[in-house]
Amino acid sequence: MIQPQSVGVVSAQRARFTEPLQLKSGGSLPEYELVYETYGELNAARSNAVLVCHALSGSHHVAGHYAEDARDVGWWDNLVGPGKPLDTRKFFVIGVNNLGGCHGSTGPSSINPATGKMWGADFPFVTVEDWVAAQARLADALGIERFAAVIGGSLGGMQALSWTLQYPERVAHALVIASAPKLTAQNIAFNEVARQAILSDPDFHGGHYYEHGVVPARGLKLARMIGHITYLSDDAMGEKFGRSLRHGKAVYSYDVEFEIESYLRYQGDKFAGFFDANTYLLITKALDYFDPAFEYGGNLAAALARATADFLVVSFSTDWRFSPARSREIVYGLLHNRRNVSYAEIDCPAGHDSFLLDDAQYHALLAAYFDRIEV
Amino acid sequence: MIQPQSVGVVSAQRARFTEPLQLKSGGSLPEYELVYETYGELNAARSNAVLVCHALSGSHHVAGHYAEDARDVGWWDNLVGPGKPLDTRKFFVIGVNNLGGCHGSTGPSSINPATGKMWGADFPFVTVEDWVAAQARLADALGIERFAAVIGGSLGGMQALSWTLQYPERVAHALVIASAPKLTAQNIAFNEVARQAILSDPDFHGGHYYEHGVVPARGLKLARMIGHITYLSDDAMGEKFGRSLRHGKAVYSYDVEFEIESYLRYQGDKFAGFFDANTYLLITKALDYFDPAFEYGGNLAAALARATADFLVVSFSTDWRFSPARSREIVYGLLHNRRNVSYAEIDCPAGHDSFLLDDAQYHALLAAYFDRIEV
Repeated sequence: MIQPQSVGVVSAQRARFTEPLQLKSGGSLPEYELVYETYGELNAARSNAVLVCHALSGSHHVAGHYAEDARDVGWWDNLVGPGKPLDTRKFFVIGVNNLGGCHGSTGPSSINPATGKMWGADFPFVTVEDWVAAQARLADALGIERFAAVIGGSLGGMQALSWTLQYPERVAHALVIASAPKLTAQNIAFNEVARQAILSDPDFHGGHYYEHGVVPARGLKLARMIGHITYLSDDAMGEKFGRSLRHGKAVYSYDVEFEIESYLRYQGDKFAGFFDANTYLLITKALDYFDPAFEYGGNLAAALARATADFLVVSFSTDWRFSPARSREIVYGLLHNRRNVSYAEIDCPAGHDSFLLDDAQYHALLAAYFDRIEV
Repeated sequence: MIQPQSVGVVSAQRARFTEPLQLKSGGSLPEYELVYETYGELNAARSNAVLVCHALSGSHHVAGHYAEDARDVGWWDNLVGPGKPLDTRKFFVIGVNNLGGCHGSTGPSSINPATGKMWGADFPFVTVEDWVAAQARLADALGIERFAAVIGGSLGGMQALSWTLQYPERVAHALVIASAPKLTAQNIAFNEVARQAILSDPDFHGGHYYEHGVVPARGLKLARMIGHITYLSDDAMGEKFGRSLRHGKAVYSYDVEFEIESYLRYQGDKFAGFFDANTYLLITKALDYFDPAFEYGGNLAAALARATADFLVVSFSTDWRFSPARSREIVYGLLHNRRNVSYAEIDCPAGHDSFLLDDAQYHALLAAYFDRIEV
């Protein structure tokens, strides 16, 4: 046992792929780049690699910090590092920004080689399956034939699940956290409102706002505010903000009165300041489309028959975005196929966001699971 | 027993009040008008009046239809009429459009006598308590000293509750349905996103859009879409729309793909076509502010000590906007004061919207309760 440590200073790398990538939507990307980070060392047998898949607002920057900004810490830094649950003394950990993203991988703000201009709204629709296919090529480039594990939370969990279906022989363990086998109508509804907020922003300009020197910040802010409501549980929001009034009493104004208003506006403004609206649209659509059982007439167990990995499925009691019942659908589908599945519902008050937190029980579970993985 | 019938053709009436109304926000309205409708006959003892309070998008048009448009049926027509649970053969029923509304009562689109222009964003903030005070003046004008009952769902239930606190001697029975003693942080959060959608719409013009000949339709549409998500249960949305694809498969477009998207856009567009944005802002703030326990250090039981009415409190099992637990808070507060309270949690799949539906168990309960009221 050592005290958990940071992986320290990290830097992003870049891989270029010149063979066209066929996309599920029917189109293809002629060429693309992926930015990624790695932590730890790939062992001689190349058997200790773990792929971390990001969710809506995540990126390749999973752990550590950059030399030029010590505060720019990776989004899952509490999980990844020496002595942490995903221990970089044992594992070679890879974070990758997905296609269509806005953190460096080829996306709507990249140059479309056919036009010499930014892709903007012309960037093709990408799906979870496309992301996984692109990640597989990165694995090829890194000489990784088989991952010791693929892990992700939320939309990242969908990628981990999809890995076991698209490349069953390349995944030993899949960790599917706070996720679902497909969105519900209500999930899609929230995404749709977020999209309409962006699409109807006059500064969106049909997705070609770059050329107008503006960004649809109003729409993006609203989209993020809606998202944040669904990331927190009602109770967590109540505990954190309650009905606290900034001025101690009602002042009858549309400025901030309740602290929850301040929180949402702050989160929305911050997000609108760095995130790309076209990427937001693409990612919400990827979420909506994900449904591996669709080709099997809705029979999830039939869809999961291809998976051969061992699974850890984790849900959180207060997650109402992807409730424990949604995780259990995955578990039942896997058990139907007699796969090795561990399942845990963690009692954590923080709602969907729990998967990002270092809840003691949750992290002990992940540590124990990673510990038993043979590399 | 008769077959339930419509109250038939109805017409709105108008009452003018020239004495200034002191508002909770500190300001006052120099004069105002309320539009209202009545159904049934006030008896000689003036003891059979029932006031129906509306929620966010409701109005004074509770039952029946207008001569000029048979399809313009009142919003609670399934409840009010001869042979219906709120039987107009027994009761004299009153619906009133609240102050600040956009259905005919004095509101933001009325003329501000001080300026000769529309009030717009200068219309004062109104609260549940102000609405009740204005309704009390209407009762005075109609010669009704004491209501046999005051009834409302959601925000309407808050008004019914507030009646028992502001004018305890004027209410014999209060029916508080699908309501809450105050909003949670999450409730406020949804309202805040809706408000930001309106306030940030370039067509809002600081609330003076009338003068610009536009309406903030984009913002109002988004606000309504968000609202609709919270009115339906996850399951009800799933049953009604599921993941049904309009084209049978993904077509990779931002046009309607899933039926739930179509429903939300339609509801949003329809609403933006007739509802006033300033009214929407005012009503969401009235919801946020409602908190009768605030003056009692958060002690709801202490706040409810003034109430002397008999109560029927009704909640719906799948209502996650105002869950059954919120209704039970009211029940506990009343029981603490040894008030007569009947409480029912109706098992209805439709979420918050259930209060508007004619669920058999729900309507049988209301019919039985109204039946036992002595007039």
